[in-house]
Amino acid sequence: MLKIGLDIMGGDAAPEATVKGAIAALREIEENSTIVLFGPEDIIVELLKKQGSSPEFFEIIHAPEVILMKEHPVNALQKKPVNSISVAYKYLKEKDIDVFASAGNSGAMMIASLNSIGLLEGVSRPCVSSTYPIQNGNSNTLLDVGINADCKPETLLQFAVLGSIYVSEILEVENPRVALLNTGEEETKGSLLYQKAYQLLKSSEAINFVGNIEARDFFDGKAEVTVCDGFTGNIFLKQSEGFFKILKKNNIKNSYLDQFNFEEYGGTPVLGVNGNVVLGHGISGQEAIKNMILTSEEIAQKRLSEVLSEKFNTVKWH
Amino acid sequence: MLKIGLDIMGGDAAPEATVKGAIAALREIEENSTIVLFGPEDIIVELLKKQGSSPEFFEIIHAPEVILMKEHPVNALQKKPVNSISVAYKYLKEKDIDVFASAGNSGAMMIASLNSIGLLEGVSRPCVSSTYPIQNGNSNTLLDVGINADCKPETLLQFAVLGSIYVSEILEVENPRVALLNTGEEETKGSLLYQKAYQLLKSSEAINFVGNIEARDFFDGKAEVTVCDGFTGNIFLKQSEGFFKILKKNNIKNSYLDQFNFEEYGGTPVLGVNGNVVLGHGISGQEAIKNMILTSEEIAQKRLSEVLSEKFNTVKWH
Repeated sequence: MLKIGLDIMGGDAAPEATVKGAIAALREIEENSTIVLFGPEDIIVELLKKQGSSPEFFEIIHAPEVILMKEHPVNALQKKPVNSISVAYKYLKEKDIDVFASAGNSGAMMIASLNSIGLLEGVSRPCVSSTYPIQNGNSNTLLDVGINADCKPETLLQFAVLGSIYVSEILEVENPRVALLNTGEEETKGSLLYQKAYQLLKSSEAINFVGNIEARDFFDGKAEVTVCDGFTGNIFLKQSEGFFKILKKNNIKNSYLDQFNFEEYGGTPVLGVNGNVVLGHGISGQEAIKNMILTSEEIAQKRLSEVLSEKFNTVKWH
Repeated sequence: MLKIGLDIMGGDAAPEATVKGAIAALREIEENSTIVLFGPEDIIVELLKKQGSSPEFFEIIHAPEVILMKEHPVNALQKKPVNSISVAYKYLKEKDIDVFASAGNSGAMMIASLNSIGLLEGVSRPCVSSTYPIQNGNSNTLLDVGINADCKPETLLQFAVLGSIYVSEILEVENPRVALLNTGEEETKGSLLYQKAYQLLKSSEAINFVGNIEARDFFDGKAEVTVCDGFTGNIFLKQSEGFFKILKKNNIKNSYLDQFNFEEYGGTPVLGVNGNVVLGHGISGQEAIKNMILTSEEIAQKRLSEVLSEKFNTVKWH
């Protein structure tokens, strides 16, 4: 009996792609799960009918205002109180939905989350991760990939702990190895932030730290969790997309490299907030939205936010 | 009549790979250019003979001490005053060689350069670049890719100017477009460093600034020069190498993507020092060393350091 909230107005291709993605996801989610659509009711109903679907297959919550992708988040949230994001967070806070997913304005998503559900106890900054396939069948989860452009060493340690819990509990990797993304393997490498973070990670008992990892070796299976600041992580994420774009342009097909297609994942959970939230890529099309909904269902099934909350405050930090 | 200095002891595969690379380069450089080998004379002579070459084809400058790749640069330079790097810089400073190339300890290379030839007037930090091929036949030169992990906004502006001069004068691209590597196109994106750097770059008349570029679009031909701090740039550089490694492992061949093989370039000039210096990749093999020597010859022919010195102090900064 899960309720999966979807922001119909979120993303460059919304609302067409979000409605189409919701219709496609409906065929794949559990029978007793419901997709709850947040947005202007008339638009939603019209688009559903246009696609040969029906409003009765969904729950629709009317939210007439829309925050655009390029709008300044703080101003937009103030000026438009009944936007789809803010309304959905109210439902999430009241546990009227089990998870909320949006490919919309990520700044607005984060600020609205802090203003409504807030952070888990002890967490100073939320973060998002990106899980990359490794050719041996494992994966390496990079975090933060976008929320925190400026970080403190202590924040990187928190990311390491959040990432470890996420990877062990949700991706089911036992005692995941944690690495610090850096410019060399020696502990004196990198900027001052990374030199200090290395020492913190090394002395923490909360994680299985294996040292620095160079970007060249990221895909070699040396770690299951890799920590960095949100600026560096976002550059890494987008560079991977750039490479995938080149491969596509050159008609290079390879079953391993095809997994770098972000559309396959669709969304990534926000770690550290007091509720299950999934952020989608702004350029998400129908396929990405469908997969974001499936990811959201899994996150809700596995009670991500509750598990993080329990584990985060029981690990031994030092 | 160019003299190209080569550190025979520099790099993981030295001295075998450096000697082999020098022998291979000898066939491709101009007839009246000379390769000057710096290192322990007995080792050099023995290896040359072993390869069927002869010491008389080269100039050999005896430097008995060796700085290892993992040694702490400051300590190593103090303890071993007659190492191949320090001896070569003396020759470069006295203009007894026209360019010096090494795939050795990059920290030692940089510190020794500051202690001998020093910086060009007005330059606060030297930097290194990596030039990436763009599928339309152009290129995008990223800098700094490794020397400066912590940067100030003003340093990024200097990189932009050094990069512009390098790309226009050496790579012969007229009025190159300069972008700032960032997490989004809007000018408020990125860390505080990048937000401030954006404003400086935008208001400078010394460069042709076209705004932020996302890593996803780096290879799309939107800029010929892309500026970032040395930490981010090094991660970008090594991630590109990581992707090339994956392509190789999967036997994917493509004439465009093959250009991502760093061995093809072999080395990159250090911009901002008072002399022509080329840094090679620590993992350079024979082919990379050969190409580093050819790059060095071109840099010397085009008088890189002199041109940078002239132009850097005549551009209108604001």
